[in-house]
Amino acid sequence: MSTHRIDELQFQLGPFRASVYQTLQFGAMAVGLTAMTLMTMASVDARFHVWLEIGLWCCLGIFAGELILRCWQRRPARASNYLFSAAGLLDVLAVLPVPFALLIGVPADTAWLFASLWLLKLTAIVPGFSLLGRVIALEARPLASVLVIFLIVILLAGAALHVLERAAQPERFGSLPLSLWWAVTTLTTTGYGDAVPDTFLGRVIAGVVMICGLGVFGLWTGILANGFAAEHRRLNFVQNWDLVTRVPFLRNLDPPAIIALTRMLRRIDLAGRTTVVRRGRPGDCMYFIASGEVEVEVQPKPIRLGPGAFFGEIALLKDTTRTATVTTTSASTLLVLEVTDFRDFMAHHPELAKMITEEGMRRASAIKAGTTADDRDNDDDDEV
Amino acid sequence: MSTHRIDELQFQLGPFRASVYQTLQFGAMAVGLTAMTLMTMASVDARFHVWLEIGLWCCLGIFAGELILRCWQRRPARASNYLFSAAGLLDVLAVLPVPFALLIGVPADTAWLFASLWLLKLTAIVPGFSLLGRVIALEARPLASVLVIFLIVILLAGAALHVLERAAQPERFGSLPLSLWWAVTTLTTTGYGDAVPDTFLGRVIAGVVMICGLGVFGLWTGILANGFAAEHRRLNFVQNWDLVTRVPFLRNLDPPAIIALTRMLRRIDLAGRTTVVRRGRPGDCMYFIASGEVEVEVQPKPIRLGPGAFFGEIALLKDTTRTATVTTTSASTLLVLEVTDFRDFMAHHPELAKMITEEGMRRASAIKAGTTADDRDNDDDDEV
Amino acid sequence: MSTHRIDELQFQLGPFRASVYQTLQFGAMAVGLTAMTLMTMASVDARFHVWLEIGLWCCLGIFAGELILRCWQRRPARASNYLFSAAGLLDVLAVLPVPFALLIGVPADTAWLFASLWLLKLTAIVPGFSLLGRVIALEARPLASVLVIFLIVILLAGAALHVLERAAQPERFGSLPLSLWWAVTTLTTTGYGDAVPDTFLGRVIAGVVMICGLGVFGLWTGILANGFAAEHRRLNFVQNWDLVTRVPFLRNLDPPAIIALTRMLRRIDLAGRTTVVRRGRPGDCMYFIASGEVEVEVQPKPIRLGPGAFFGEIALLKDTTRTATVTTTSASTLLVLEVTDFRDFMAHHPELAKMITEEGMRRASAIKAGTTADDRDNDDDDEV
Amino acid sequence: MSTHRIDELQFQLGPFRASVYQTLQFGAMAVGLTAMTLMTMASVDARFHVWLEIGLWCCLGIFAGELILRCWQRRPARASNYLFSAAGLLDVLAVLPVPFALLIGVPADTAWLFASLWLLKLTAIVPGFSLLGRVIALEARPLASVLVIFLIVILLAGAALHVLERAAQPERFGSLPLSLWWAVTTLTTTGYGDAVPDTFLGRVIAGVVMICGLGVFGLWTGILANGFAAEHRRLNFVQNWDLVTRVPFLRNLDPPAIIALTRMLRRIDLAGRTTVVRRGRPGDCMYFIASGEVEVEVQPKPIRLGPGAFFGEIALLKDTTRTATVTTTSASTLLVLEVTDFRDFMAHHPELAKMITEEGMRRASAIKAGTTADDRDNDDDDEV
Repeated sequence: MSTHRIDELQFQLGPFRASVYQTLQFGAMAVGLTAMTLMTMASVDARFHVWLEIGLWCCLGIFAGELILRCWQRRPARASNYLFSAAGLLDVLAVLPVPFALLIGVPADTAWLFASLWLLKLTAIVPGFSLLGRVIALEARPLASVLVIFLIVILLAGAALHVLERAAQPERFGSLPLSLWWAVTTLTTTGYGDAVPDTFLGRVIAGVVMICGLGVFGLWTGILANGFAAEHRRLNFVQNWDLVTRVPFLRNLDPPAIIALTRMLRRIDLAGRTTVVRRGRPGDCMYFIASGEVEVEVQPKPIRLGPGAFFGEIALLKDTTRTATVTTTSASTLLVLEVTDFRDFMAHHPELAKMITEEGMRRASAIKAGTTADDRDNDDDDEV
Repeated sequence: MSTHRIDELQFQLGPFRASVYQTLQFGAMAVGLTAMTLMTMASVDARFHVWLEIGLWCCLGIFAGELILRCWQRRPARASNYLFSAAGLLDVLAVLPVPFALLIGVPADTAWLFASLWLLKLTAIVPGFSLLGRVIALEARPLASVLVIFLIVILLAGAALHVLERAAQPERFGSLPLSLWWAVTTLTTTGYGDAVPDTFLGRVIAGVVMICGLGVFGLWTGILANGFAAEHRRLNFVQNWDLVTRVPFLRNLDPPAIIALTRMLRRIDLAGRTTVVRRGRPGDCMYFIASGEVEVEVQPKPIRLGPGAFFGEIALLKDTTRTATVTTTSASTLLVLEVTDFRDFMAHHPELAKMITEEGMRRASAIKAGTTADDRDNDDDDEV
Repeated sequence: MSTHRIDELQFQLGPFRASVYQTLQFGAMAVGLTAMTLMTMASVDARFHVWLEIGLWCCLGIFAGELILRCWQRRPARASNYLFSAAGLLDVLAVLPVPFALLIGVPADTAWLFASLWLLKLTAIVPGFSLLGRVIALEARPLASVLVIFLIVILLAGAALHVLERAAQPERFGSLPLSLWWAVTTLTTTGYGDAVPDTFLGRVIAGVVMICGLGVFGLWTGILANGFAAEHRRLNFVQNWDLVTRVPFLRNLDPPAIIALTRMLRRIDLAGRTTVVRRGRPGDCMYFIASGEVEVEVQPKPIRLGPGAFFGEIALLKDTTRTATVTTTSASTLLVLEVTDFRDFMAHHPELAKMITEEGMRRASAIKAGTTADDRDNDDDDEV
Repeated sequence: MSTHRIDELQFQLGPFRASVYQTLQFGAMAVGLTAMTLMTMASVDARFHVWLEIGLWCCLGIFAGELILRCWQRRPARASNYLFSAAGLLDVLAVLPVPFALLIGVPADTAWLFASLWLLKLTAIVPGFSLLGRVIALEARPLASVLVIFLIVILLAGAALHVLERAAQPERFGSLPLSLWWAVTTLTTTGYGDAVPDTFLGRVIAGVVMICGLGVFGLWTGILANGFAAEHRRLNFVQNWDLVTRVPFLRNLDPPAIIALTRMLRRIDLAGRTTVVRRGRPGDCMYFIASGEVEVEVQPKPIRLGPGAFFGEIALLKDTTRTATVTTTSASTLLVLEVTDFRDFMAHHPELAKMITEEGMRRASAIKAGTTADDRDNDDDDEV
């Protein structure tokens, strides 16, 4: 969703206005959260209260403006659609709570604490949240099991400690909620030390709870690690598939080869005028251009390669360093094939090896007679 | 065991009575545990003691009733079988301890703490415990090794700190049990801070113990993570195998293809009247119906697909959005094939690609002439 | 090494004497460590000092006796070999330090703390230590890198906090060693709370240190988890290979099939008279007998199967429950093939499917005409 | 980069001078850091201040000398290149800060704390940092997502606790920065215990924060573990590829076999006169010599094997123990093929089995008639 949102933005506003918009949003967030924090510090608030409040209202105004603009842009028909989407809900949550709290008479310094909800807007900008969300959704069952273990250990340990320690430390273990508080801080290995068992048996149980805590940690981590690895592969495959099908001669490989290659590629997004590979550096990967354009600095004049072209393969084929510098001319999406995977793929799919050589020859002869044979083999990974 | 138990329940009682039964059980658990907790808080207990005790007895009555019912249902012959099974033992543990404790003269507020055992019944309801249990059983050897490392570090560190710190802090490190208590809280990185070494050497040893703690964590997590991943795959395979063999045309694939597909599928259980895919949404998976029925909303009238049918494949084959909404008519079990795996499978098993097309054609012509060609390609993943 | 040692023991002494020997060793360890612990508790020591000391001397005597016996058993020639092996060193470490400490005038209560070294003997008994050791040895380089990160973070954070906090808290951060102590307790997320930064910048740095702590954890765990998984597979393969080559008809499979099978099998060691599978239970694996013997309870009289035979395959082939109970007659080593792997293997290696059927027929006809056809398909996994 | 640097060093200086240089550098680091630490301890500083300062200036001199030497060695042309590389920057950071701080009037004891930057030089010596760096760079997106979750949880929890606890504990939760400090120590499960919520709701939120902390841990670890595994495989492949292509008859295998073998091999670097395998020990791997030379102790006189040769295969083929001791004569790089992978490879690539036998025969007959047939099968893994 997040990358999607930024893409959509650039599409609607153009790159310059999109970056102004983003700077404004990040700025408002930073200024607003700082002002909110300072407002809670009595000494600062006493001297600058008016300025802080003006700053906060300005930030709120920016977010309110954004919300109204987005609704207006979509006409009444689709505005409700937007308001009930995840992104829309976050935009509403950023605007409404503070005025609402002030209206129902909450004191200003408390009401403005709702400004911390502004940080949630980051989830729509920073990529990767949908991935984490899917992992948690798919692994919900085992995660729930671990949570139940967690609850059982806490309740049993809390009850046991309550019985054992209530006589000696009534203010620490005198009721079950107090004991449970101790159990939670212990099982998570936080260990505030505000409540510590004194009896021998209580300490033995505490030790067992701590070790269970490590076990719970371990299971939790194991579940998330596996789920994350699987989702990461899936997402990578889905994204690469779209890009691979844009590269003409990859599309013509036989199906199992496409699948294998799609698994191996790694996508990188580069801004314009970024050096992709630098002449003389060791070459450890080759590149396919999914979108955008790159310029290869060769004599007598630079060559431009567009979507569907590839470069950097000669350094891998001949085990040499890069022989020319390659720079993007505009924002480009490249697909990187690491040398490891390159060799693996070449070994199992000799037809691609042939295609790469042939495609190179074809392109070389199409542009210029003698110079191009060397000029595509210039790449480095210093941007990666 | 757990899903098994719920399935068995639904089979015996029907879905409505099963859900009444489950609500009753969860309700009794929630009410009982809350009452037990409140009883330990002196101020609440003083005012509402009678009500709390009534609530607890009611909950106990419900669990006792369940236990008697289950025994009676099975006749004497199989009742003992049940009582010594894991589930039966939990049911007994929920009922007997409290009355027994009251009988032998334990004060009421302590006796009722045994009600925390009621929470153990969750292990029979929440799925996934048998999985966690198997992981721990299979990885028992390396986990035991880690535990022995744990014990050795604790004992050696405890003895060393006892020697180093007993003069300065006799009340903290004056005996080995006190030192061991410090070592346990330190190795698990809980760090209550009630006992902290003061000498230089003591602090160096403490630092080493903490780093060992991280190492123990790491090994423990590594073992559990690997074991969990292996078991998860195994369980998934076993469950899917049963479902795959119910889908006629999957059964006819050649054996290696069935194995590969069984590994790829993910099972989802949906209630009746749930929307599986929504027209116009992007399609990222296809579905096989293992049991239940779905309704495809096409013109002129909806089509129903039963066990063995599949849907959602056209959005993947043509890379389009879903072209119709599909809803379950009754509780259904679907097998999901993600687009990633779909493409992989299609590439390596061209015969399935053919079968899917043919099956689709056959079904389409069997139902209606011109409309069905488009109406099965309507699915979305908003339920996943 | 560990399992090796126990095997060697049983070979030399026979199972009964080996178990007496083991009980004696564990008993001496338990009694000795308890006595040592009690000795450090002033109140207990005052009343029972003589008895505790007698107990400790007895335990020491047992370990000294073991050491002498083992040396004597090996003659002078190989005794030095033994003494410098890992196991021998542990045996020496268990015996010498206490008398030596007493000789050079260390007070008795301190000298006996060396008895905690007795626990190290566990490493030679509990299996899995060599595995953990190999993981750490193979992953030494990345683990060392993490340790260096650890050191760098601690030193930089310690120096920074020393500068920031020394004025306000001279007794906590007044010298670099004090600051480093704080940094260690913080980076490991132990957090005793004896030293806590007060300044704003100090707390910001502390927050960064804590987050680095999580990162160090994560890297450490990732390294160990991967190393552990790889070693576990390797060890499993090596152990299974020896067993697979003892089963005649597995030996005759074509090489890639043997490799695949060796990866899939899981070894279980069962004592005599243990029920392997129970009639009527669901069957989720089949068994190969690597050594030992099992008895299949069929009519008219039980059948015995020895090394090289297999059982439990019919429940998998026909998807039925176990049809007879199988019990070991002596200590046996079985190789378990889970249903998941069984189906996978059958799909990819049809020749084994044929061999299993044929072997079954051959064995059936060799023993008795009509009864054996059903009697091998009786197994359960309640021992696994 | 790091191993590269050490290799470069040995190439320029020869092994002896390189080791003198390394000892000097490590020594200066150890002495300097110790002196710096002692200087912060008032009692030590009072007595030995002059000596400590002399020691520190000497160490600084050594590092400054190294920096100047390295610049001078590269001539002006490439010196700036060096100064802006990672290694050069570290060298500069080790030299400049202390004199600069003294110049601008920072007191000596504070200025010398910058000597802790000397530890950063370790990152250029200890191998594995580039690996860790790549993992973090490649997984930057999901790691950033986790960090954002971290920030959101801290801000929301901090704001909530500020509202709930400010009345009761104004000195602990009276301003948002104080609350945030509590939130950080809690979410990382450090738990200093300097600020602990007292209200019921505050404690419930604290419990949720702790559990979120475990989740953040888990995600973080999962991401790093997966990234680390992938990078480790990649790096191993790249390094092995270079070595495999130096072994003549491996180079002649068909491409998929080379790829498979490159994945299986593990590189070990041994010093001269190191025993690789010992006669009579069990054999669990075979060796290929990538560079260097080994001596096989056979009758009538030892045989020397150089780059491209292999040894240790007979113990694996015949399942026997090693039949001769093999020792390196000079620093050598060997490629280890574990028995697991050896059997796997032999099964799937019968042509290598043939090549290994043939190559052995050829070499045997080329050296001496009857003795060599047995003398290469002598290896052990006690150096591994």
